[in-house]
Amino acid sequence: MCNTIKQLFKTNTILINKKILVKGWVKHKRINKLKTFLIINDGSTIKNLQIILEKEDKTINLGVYLKIKGRLVFSKGKKQTLELVANHIKIYGIFKSKDLQNTILQPKKHSYKKLREQSYLRFRTNFFSSIMRIRHNVSYLIHKYFNNNGFYYIHTPIITNYDTEGSSNLFKVTTFKTNDLKSDFFGENAYLTVSGQMHGESAALGLRKIYTFGPVFRAEQSKTPRHLAEFWMVEPEIAFFNLKNNMFLAEEFIKYIIKNILILSKDDIESLDKTNIIFKNLTNILKQEFKRIQYSQVIRILIKNGYDINWGQDINYEHEKFLVESYFKAPIIIFNYPIDIKPFYMRKNKDKTTVAAMDIIFPNVGEIIGGSQREERYDILLSQIKYFKLNSTILEWYINTRRFSTVPHSGFGLGFDRLVQFITNMKNIKEVIPFPRSINKIYT
Amino acid sequence: MCNTIKQLFKTNTILINKKILVKGWVKHKRINKLKTFLIINDGSTIKNLQIILEKEDKTINLGVYLKIKGRLVFSKGKKQTLELVANHIKIYGIFKSKDLQNTILQPKKHSYKKLREQSYLRFRTNFFSSIMRIRHNVSYLIHKYFNNNGFYYIHTPIITNYDTEGSSNLFKVTTFKTNDLKSDFFGENAYLTVSGQMHGESAALGLRKIYTFGPVFRAEQSKTPRHLAEFWMVEPEIAFFNLKNNMFLAEEFIKYIIKNILILSKDDIESLDKTNIIFKNLTNILKQEFKRIQYSQVIRILIKNGYDINWGQDINYEHEKFLVESYFKAPIIIFNYPIDIKPFYMRKNKDKTTVAAMDIIFPNVGEIIGGSQREERYDILLSQIKYFKLNSTILEWYINTRRFSTVPHSGFGLGFDRLVQFITNMKNIKEVIPFPRSINKIYT
Repeated sequence: MCNTIKQLFKTNTILINKKILVKGWVKHKRINKLKTFLIINDGSTIKNLQIILEKEDKTINLGVYLKIKGRLVFSKGKKQTLELVANHIKIYGIFKSKDLQNTILQPKKHSYKKLREQSYLRFRTNFFSSIMRIRHNVSYLIHKYFNNNGFYYIHTPIITNYDTEGSSNLFKVTTFKTNDLKSDFFGENAYLTVSGQMHGESAALGLRKIYTFGPVFRAEQSKTPRHLAEFWMVEPEIAFFNLKNNMFLAEEFIKYIIKNILILSKDDIESLDKTNIIFKNLTNILKQEFKRIQYSQVIRILIKNGYDINWGQDINYEHEKFLVESYFKAPIIIFNYPIDIKPFYMRKNKDKTTVAAMDIIFPNVGEIIGGSQREERYDILLSQIKYFKLNSTILEWYINTRRFSTVPHSGFGLGFDRLVQFITNMKNIKEVIPFPRSINKIYT
Repeated sequence: MCNTIKQLFKTNTILINKKILVKGWVKHKRINKLKTFLIINDGSTIKNLQIILEKEDKTINLGVYLKIKGRLVFSKGKKQTLELVANHIKIYGIFKSKDLQNTILQPKKHSYKKLREQSYLRFRTNFFSSIMRIRHNVSYLIHKYFNNNGFYYIHTPIITNYDTEGSSNLFKVTTFKTNDLKSDFFGENAYLTVSGQMHGESAALGLRKIYTFGPVFRAEQSKTPRHLAEFWMVEPEIAFFNLKNNMFLAEEFIKYIIKNILILSKDDIESLDKTNIIFKNLTNILKQEFKRIQYSQVIRILIKNGYDINWGQDINYEHEKFLVESYFKAPIIIFNYPIDIKPFYMRKNKDKTTVAAMDIIFPNVGEIIGGSQREERYDILLSQIKYFKLNSTILEWYINTRRFSTVPHSGFGLGFDRLVQFITNMKNIKEVIPFPRSINKIYT
């Protein structure tokens, strides 16, 4: 039987002095007093296993994959608790050490940019394998939270014929050989989705509580360290739910993730967290209630503090940084935004100038969640579509979700990659997704 | 506190005679002896709750959303075990009953095609809400299986610059305003992915066991009831793994899903399964080992049984049907296919005419899993790329995953929607995905 290194460290006492089989690749090698010491890793954990070979071995290269049979013993050294005294080693795929010269597999410090440029080898580094295991655990916690709370996972479509966010930063999907739209694959304009929300709404009106978790796309020209052209979004949508319920859910949900990732990914977080900043960031989120504050009040605070902004204007990243990191020193939920700076589907408030929108702003990464109560009233939805001069023919199906009975419902979108970026405290979001896509660049 | 109907049926004895609050929509209404009887559903379960209103009510329409306060009691009737004696009802979004006339919400039998054409209302029907809850549970079981077995979830990219399957049925992704490729968003050709496998391989070589679960795309012209232009695929990939291991994993994995879906989705399966055929299909998969059979032997069997086929030709859906439903009467795993009918990356066998490929064929739906041991040997991979006349420049990164050490690894792809189609015994795969995409048609 073959054990992963993770399993060995979990069940070590039972296996001590037993013959075991492990597989992994060489992270470090040293020869001393007729013995060869190999440090191997197998990707299952950040922890390495030391292998002791009772002879000098000059054939085993750094980076090479091995199958090792041997006896598990407690280590006499200080750092490792377990080691394997090998009696048989199989070497896979020998290569020349000098081939490593220009790769990120060479054992030295590499820049994030260089690591990214060899994204297909990044998985073999300590840094990136930790990020990937954390990313996995965050994904799994998301599914677990929603499943445990009675939400159903809906696969909303990737190819759509409408721009939900009205951003017009759309990718077109085509099999064009001619310029005749009717002869194209779908016989109409097709785009990559920017959000699963509208489809999610129609699902929530039949299943009550649903969530999506899938890729979305923005053909944004910007090159900020917080944006990707392709990223993963989580979008719960709930019937019989108002903005207040929505804020409560969003806060509970994100705290659940952070509380549990500290436990589940302890080893990997510690490995990334040389200065204890990650631990501080995460526990800071847990120990306080997110401040709820109306957009109008935010504008008053910004003006009072010397910012050049008027009611009706968008709050930008600079403002967010000031509010969260200097003024409130806590995550905040800004709600009730002016109608004109939010999409048409948000629910009009009684004041007739604002909508029931909410954005959650985090330190370091800015907006992490955006949501709203949706306009469920048929007549008002129609008048909003008119007001924003939108195409009511292509929106007919969406309008119809309010026509044959209707109910208050709400939901939000969480930028999954940005959450992982926050959790791992990476400066650039490209460090937390396997193969980043952004303008002018497809990383293999 | 508001309970879902699912919760009520789970915890009924504690709540009997308590005041409770439920929300849902009206599936059926009848007035009798000065009382109004409403059957409501809230999407949390296929089970309905009967509401008793101690007066005649003519304002409540079929389909309308309600909030109901009342007292939970055991039913005196035969079918329902619980009912709610209402003392307060709030009605949301009243509408005119005649508006329902052309919709699938009208209480009568509708064709699958009509249901599909109003996909945004389909979630409110018994049939489709059952399918969606089953689909959710299958998804969740997939994540649970892999998580429990030490696999890490990897988000492989949707936008790629290469056609993994060599099918050339690719969708192009563009922001074109001009015809100059360099001024397009990515500055090079970009397509929608057909498989996450190649990227998954590079991840498995650093994390040992990974899986993907995401959308893939085929611009196929065919209109069969088993194909979609956009569908979800599950692709595990494992280092230190050969074809035999791969077959074992695939069989164990799919049996885990089927065994557990019978428990988790009992109510919804029973509701769909009027003739007990689903229960029979699923238990049939569980009670026997999948037959492993080499491609060459399959060809001999087909020829013996009068089929016009030669060694080297592809096995088609008709052949698969015969093998699984008539000849073996069991799911089969066909392995060791001729080199020329499989992609370049599959591992060349010692006979030099076949590769270590495997396809799992199921009754009703045909191929449900396709996988292989991958060619890990650097020189042979290069010669295969030459043999198939592929572009080795664009494949350089992939070739490099074998250059700096290499190890045997394997994986497979499961068509997720096709698995749900098999489990729910639907004739058309369009009945199991919320918003199907196929040639000439974007359902909302």
